[in-house]
Amino acid sequence: MELCDRQKNTNVRLSLPAVCIVWQTAMIILFGVFIRYNEESSPRWVEYRKAKNISSDIENDFYFRYPSFQDVHVMIFVGFGFLMTFLKRYSFGAVGFNFLIAAFGLQWALLMQGWFHSLDYSDGKIKIGIENLINADFCVAGCLIAYGAVLGKVSPVQLMVLTLFGITLFAVEEYIILDLIHAKDAGGSMVIHTFGGYYGLSISWMLYRPNLDQSSRLQGSVYHSDVFAMIGTLFLWMFWPSFNSAITDHGDGQHRAAINTYLALAATVLTTVAVSSLFQKHGKLDMVHIQNSTLAGGVAVGTAAEFMLMPYGSLIVGFCCGIVSTLGYIYLTPFMEKYMKIQDTCGIHNLHAMPGVIGGIVGAITAAAASESVYGHEGLINTFDFEGEFKDMVPTRQGGHQAAGLCVAICFGVGGGIIVGCILRLPIWGDAADDNCFDDEAYWEVPDDEETFPQVPQYNNHMRNKDV
Amino acid sequence: MELCDRQKNTNVRLSLPAVCIVWQTAMIILFGVFIRYNEESSPRWVEYRKAKNISSDIENDFYFRYPSFQDVHVMIFVGFGFLMTFLKRYSFGAVGFNFLIAAFGLQWALLMQGWFHSLDYSDGKIKIGIENLINADFCVAGCLIAYGAVLGKVSPVQLMVLTLFGITLFAVEEYIILDLIHAKDAGGSMVIHTFGGYYGLSISWMLYRPNLDQSSRLQGSVYHSDVFAMIGTLFLWMFWPSFNSAITDHGDGQHRAAINTYLALAATVLTTVAVSSLFQKHGKLDMVHIQNSTLAGGVAVGTAAEFMLMPYGSLIVGFCCGIVSTLGYIYLTPFMEKYMKIQDTCGIHNLHAMPGVIGGIVGAITAAAASESVYGHEGLINTFDFEGEFKDMVPTRQGGHQAAGLCVAICFGVGGGIIVGCILRLPIWGDAADDNCFDDEAYWEVPDDEETFPQVPQYNNHMRNKDV
Amino acid sequence: MELCDRQKNTNVRLSLPAVCIVWQTAMIILFGVFIRYNEESSPRWVEYRKAKNISSDIENDFYFRYPSFQDVHVMIFVGFGFLMTFLKRYSFGAVGFNFLIAAFGLQWALLMQGWFHSLDYSDGKIKIGIENLINADFCVAGCLIAYGAVLGKVSPVQLMVLTLFGITLFAVEEYIILDLIHAKDAGGSMVIHTFGGYYGLSISWMLYRPNLDQSSRLQGSVYHSDVFAMIGTLFLWMFWPSFNSAITDHGDGQHRAAINTYLALAATVLTTVAVSSLFQKHGKLDMVHIQNSTLAGGVAVGTAAEFMLMPYGSLIVGFCCGIVSTLGYIYLTPFMEKYMKIQDTCGIHNLHAMPGVIGGIVGAITAAAASESVYGHEGLINTFDFEGEFKDMVPTRQGGHQAAGLCVAICFGVGGGIIVGCILRLPIWGDAADDNCFDDEAYWEVPDDEETFPQVPQYNNHMRNKDV
Repeated sequence: MELCDRQKNTNVRLSLPAVCIVWQTAMIILFGVFIRYNEESSPRWVEYRKAKNISSDIENDFYFRYPSFQDVHVMIFVGFGFLMTFLKRYSFGAVGFNFLIAAFGLQWALLMQGWFHSLDYSDGKIKIGIENLINADFCVAGCLIAYGAVLGKVSPVQLMVLTLFGITLFAVEEYIILDLIHAKDAGGSMVIHTFGGYYGLSISWMLYRPNLDQSSRLQGSVYHSDVFAMIGTLFLWMFWPSFNSAITDHGDGQHRAAINTYLALAATVLTTVAVSSLFQKHGKLDMVHIQNSTLAGGVAVGTAAEFMLMPYGSLIVGFCCGIVSTLGYIYLTPFMEKYMKIQDTCGIHNLHAMPGVIGGIVGAITAAAASESVYGHEGLINTFDFEGEFKDMVPTRQGGHQAAGLCVAICFGVGGGIIVGCILRLPIWGDAADDNCFDDEAYWEVPDDEETFPQVPQYNNHMRNKDV
Repeated sequence: MELCDRQKNTNVRLSLPAVCIVWQTAMIILFGVFIRYNEESSPRWVEYRKAKNISSDIENDFYFRYPSFQDVHVMIFVGFGFLMTFLKRYSFGAVGFNFLIAAFGLQWALLMQGWFHSLDYSDGKIKIGIENLINADFCVAGCLIAYGAVLGKVSPVQLMVLTLFGITLFAVEEYIILDLIHAKDAGGSMVIHTFGGYYGLSISWMLYRPNLDQSSRLQGSVYHSDVFAMIGTLFLWMFWPSFNSAITDHGDGQHRAAINTYLALAATVLTTVAVSSLFQKHGKLDMVHIQNSTLAGGVAVGTAAEFMLMPYGSLIVGFCCGIVSTLGYIYLTPFMEKYMKIQDTCGIHNLHAMPGVIGGIVGAITAAAASESVYGHEGLINTFDFEGEFKDMVPTRQGGHQAAGLCVAICFGVGGGIIVGCILRLPIWGDAADDNCFDDEAYWEVPDDEETFPQVPQYNNHMRNKDV
Repeated sequence: MELCDRQKNTNVRLSLPAVCIVWQTAMIILFGVFIRYNEESSPRWVEYRKAKNISSDIENDFYFRYPSFQDVHVMIFVGFGFLMTFLKRYSFGAVGFNFLIAAFGLQWALLMQGWFHSLDYSDGKIKIGIENLINADFCVAGCLIAYGAVLGKVSPVQLMVLTLFGITLFAVEEYIILDLIHAKDAGGSMVIHTFGGYYGLSISWMLYRPNLDQSSRLQGSVYHSDVFAMIGTLFLWMFWPSFNSAITDHGDGQHRAAINTYLALAATVLTTVAVSSLFQKHGKLDMVHIQNSTLAGGVAVGTAAEFMLMPYGSLIVGFCCGIVSTLGYIYLTPFMEKYMKIQDTCGIHNLHAMPGVIGGIVGAITAAAASESVYGHEGLINTFDFEGEFKDMVPTRQGGHQAAGLCVAICFGVGGGIIVGCILRLPIWGDAADDNCFDDEAYWEVPDDEETFPQVPQYNNHMRNKDV
C-alpha cells in the first residue's frame, strides 16, 4: 500500500492548465451570452434616477454596500487564505489555492446565482450590481470552508472540481432555502456555514486516508506560521460584522446586524480563552483554539443578526459558541478522526458546521418569537419580508420555515459532499501520497531556506553530508 | 532572590478561566438589564425616519460612520496587536492577549460609556448605535496603550484587571473632560493617548523588576518579527485618519479631520527617518523608530484634527513629533529605565504619552486662536458646540478648558495607574519570574520549531543530546 | 573592479537626514503659502450646502470617496510595501523605504497636482479635499512602481531623488494627457502604470550593474518572505476595484468601474496559474507569478473600467494579461537582463509596463466603439465628459486621443527615466556595491537571528568558532 502510494504522481502540468484555460474560456462565453450591468451600474443610471425620482447619486446601492463588500472580499482572500497558513510547510498551498478557487468560484457563482435571482425575463440577461458581487463572494465562502477540511490532502485540480460542484449545489440550495421556503439567512449560518461545513466533511470522509500519520511530521505549525494564521483570524473576526450586514436591509437592518455580530464575537473570545486554558495542562492557551474558535460566534449569529436578537442575546450566542467550538477541537475532532474516519485538517466542524447549525436554530427561535410589539407593524413586515405571496405569514410559522431551511442545508451538504467525494476518488486528479501530504513541495517551487544566513552555508552542508 | 523568583507560578488554569467566565456572565446580565438598540438600529427606524422627515435610509448614522468604524476596528486588533509582535518570542502573547483584553474591554466600555453618554432617562436603558461601537473601541485603545508598557511582564489575568479598571477610569475621565469641562477631543490625544500612556507607565513603575536583565536574551527582535510588527505599524498609520475623524461632525468635520491626520502622519515619517539615521552609527535606520515614531503625528493631531489647524499646521505638528518621539526612544527610554525605574517595553512614552500631551497643547492653542473670520459664524458654533449651556463660550476660554482637560487626563493616568499598580503587585496573579519574561512559553503551547525542516530532525536531536 | 566596488560607502548619516529635513521644511513652507481646505472640508461647508441647496451632509464628496480612498491608501503602503518583501534579506528596505518615499511623495504630489488641477484663481490657493488625497496616492504609485525595478540596488537618498522627479514628471504628464489631450484614464493604466513602469525600467537601464551576480546569493526568496509578499499581493488584488473606481463619476461610474475590475482580476488568476504550471518542470507553480501576474488584469482594465467594457470584455482583458504577464516573467525578464542591460528586480515590465500599454489600447478601442445606443445620450456625455470645449467630441476621435495619451505616457516614462537615471549615476548617493545589493545590512540595524532559540546559543557559537 505504502509503496503503491509513493508512486502517486502529483504532476498537474497538463490537467491544471487545461482546467483553468477551458473553464475560464467557458466563463467568458457564458458571461458574453448572459451577464450585463444592472440599471445602477450602467450609464442609464442618470435616466433611471430621474424616472424613479431619486434625489442623489448617493442613493445608488453602491454606496450602501461597497464598504461591506470590500470587507467581505478581504475575509475571502486574506481571512480564509491566511487562516489556513498555520501548517509549517503548506502556507503556499493555503493562501495560493484559496486564491485560485475563490477567483474561479466567484465567476461561476455570478452565473449560477444570477440565473436564480437576477435574471431579467424581458431580455434573458442577468443584470449585476454590487449586491451580486457580495453574493458571489458569499457563495465562494462555502467552498473555502470545505477546503479547510481537506487542506493539504488534495490537488489543485481536485479543488477546482470541488469548487465547480460546490458553487452549483450552493446556488440550488440557496434558491430552495431563501426563495421557495422563504427562510431568512442574512449572514448565511445555514446556506454558507452549515452547507459548506458538511460538504467539506463529507468529502473528507470519502477521501479518508488511513495512513495519513505518515505525514504527521508536517501536520503541525511552527512559531511564525501561527502568527501568519492570526492575520487570517483577525481579519475574519474584525470584518464579520460586515459579512453579516452586507446584504441585509438598508438602514436599521445593516445597522443592527453589525451590532449583533460585533457583540457575539466579543463574547466568544472570552469563553474560548477560558475553555482553552481550563482543558490544557498547566493552563496554557492553544493557538488552534484562539485562531478558530474565537470566530464561532460570528457564524452562529449569522441568521439572526438582522432580527431583534437583542444585545444580550448576541452575547449569549457568542458565549455558548466559544465553549462548544473549543470543546469540539479538544474532544470531537480526534474522536471523528479515530472512530468516524473523518480527517478535518482545519477543524471546520467546530468552526463552521456546529456553529452554523446553532445559528440556524437561534434564527428559528428568534423568528418564531418575533412580534409587532417589538418590531412595530412596518418593522416586522420589512424585517421578515412578509410581502407578496408571503403576506399572510406569521412569525411562528416563519420559525418553522427557518428550521426547514436548516435541514435542507444539511442535506445538500452531506449529500453533495458524498457525490463529489466519489468523483474526487477517481485516480486521475494528481493528489499526493499519504506520506507526502501537507507539503508545498508537491505543487510549488519552494525556495531553499538553508541559504537564509549566507555566512554559514558551507558549514551546514558539510555537516549534513557527513551525518545523514 | 533569583531562586525565589524561579518558583513563581505562571499557571493560570483556574484564575484565567474563572475571570473570563464570571466577567462574561456579568456582561450578559448587565447587557440584559441595560443595553438596547437606539432608534437608528431598531426596526422602529422606518417610523422614526418618517416622523423626522428623513428622506433616505442613507442618512442613517450607520452610513456616515461604518467605514471609519471598521478602520478603527482594524487598528485596535491588527494595528495594536501586530505592532507588539516585534519581540522574538512573544508574538503569541502580543497578538493574543491584545485580542482577549480588547474583546472584554469593548463590552465593559459599552456599559460604562453608555451610562454616562447614552442613557435614555425615559426607560433607564442605554441605547446603542454605531457611534457607541466606535467609542467602545476608542476606550479599549487606552488600555492597549497601557499594555504596551508592561508587554511581556504580566499575566493575562493581570491584563484583565488592568483593562477592567482602565475602562472604568477612562469613562469617568472622558465624562469629566468632554461633558463637564466641555473640552473637545475628537481623536483622543488627551482622553485616549495621554491617559493611556501615563496609566501604563505608572503601572509599569509600580511593577518595577530590578532583575529584568535576566530576560535580556529575549528582549529584542528577530528579522521576521520586525516585519510582522510593520503590519501593525502600517495599519495604524494608514487608518489613523479614520480614527481621528470617526466621531467628528458629519460633513466638513469628518472631511477636515481626515485631511489633517493624513498630512501630519506624512511629515512624521520624514523626520523620524532623519533623526533615526542621524543618531545611529553609520547612519543606519533602526526598526524600533520606524515602527513607532512614524505614528506620533497621528497622536499629536488628534485633538485639533477637526479644528482649522490648516494643512501646514498639520505638517508642523507631524514634523516636531517625529523628532521628539525618535529622540525619546534614543535618550529618554533608557534614562527612565535606569533612573526612574520605569520599564517601558514598547516605548509608549514616546509614542503615546508625549505626543498626546503635545496634542493637548496644540488643541488648546488652536481652539484659543479660533475666530468667526476663519470658521464663519455657524462654522464656529458647530465645530466647538457653543450651544446650550455653553452658548456664551468664546474661543479663548475654550482654549483654557482644553488645557484643563489635558491636566485631568494626566492626573487620571498617573493616579489610576498607581492604584491599579498596587493591586497588580499582589502575589496572586500568576505573573512570570524576572528570568522568564518576554517568553510565550509561560502562557502558550508553543510549537517546536526545530522540526521545521523535517529532513534532519534526528540529526538535530542527536547533536543536542551529545553536546548540551 | 570588485575591490573598488567594495570601498563604496553606504553611509547616509548626513545625506539622508539632510534631504528629509530640508525637503520636509520646504513642504511646510509651500503648504503654508499654497494649500487650503476646499469648500467641502472647511467649516464654510454649512453655508455652502445651503447656498447650493444640498439636502444632506451625506452628499459631501467625503462620503462618496472615503472608503475607496482608504483602500487605495492600503494598496500604496501595505500592498506595494509587502509585495516587495519577497527577497530573503531586503524586507526592511522593501517596506521601510516604500513607506518613506510614499510619505514624502504624497506631499509633493498634493502641490504639483494642485497647481495643475485645484488652483483657485481668485486667491491663488490650492483647495484640497478627499479627491486630492486620492490623486496624491495615485501619483505616488507611479514612483513605487519604479522602485520595484531598482529594488535592492539603490540607496534611500537615490529613492528620494527618484520620487521628487517622478512626482514632478507625473503631474506634468497627467496634465497633458487628461486636460490637454482630454484622454480619460480613471484607473491610470497610462498615467500611472505605463509611465511608472517605463520610468523605472529606464532608470534601471541607466544604473546597469554588470557584476550584480555577486549578490546572487541574496537575490531570491525564503519560505516566509514569500508568504509576506502574498500579503502585499492580496491587498493589491482585493482593493484594486477601489483603485480603479476611486475617482470615477459618482453613481454608475464608480459602480461599473468596481465591477469591471473585480472581473478582470478574477480571470487573470486562472490564466496566471495555467501558464505558470504549464511552463515549469513537473507543473509546479512559481510564487513569483502568483504574487505578480495575478494583478496584471487590474492594471490593464484601468483606463476602460468606467467605460462600457462589458463584463465579458473585462474577463477577456484579464484572461490575456495573465498569459502575457506570466510569459513575461518566464522569457522577457531574463532576456532583458541578458541582452538589454535592464535589471528589473520585481519584474515591473510584466506587471505594470506591458499591462499598462494593453490597458491604454483597450481604453482607446472601447472609447472609439462607444455609441449613444449603448450609453444613452446623457450617459455618453457624462462618461466621456463631452462638455465645455469638448462638447463636439465624438467617440471615434476620443479613441484617437486615448492613443495619443498612451504615447505621451511612454515618452515621459522613458525620457524622464533616462534623465533621472543620469542624475542617479553621480557617485554621491551612497548606493551599495555590486556584491552588497539586496542586503538590509547596508541601511538598517538588523537583529541577529542566531539567538532566536535561546536554549542553544552557546552550542551554536561554539560550533561556529571552531569550524568557520
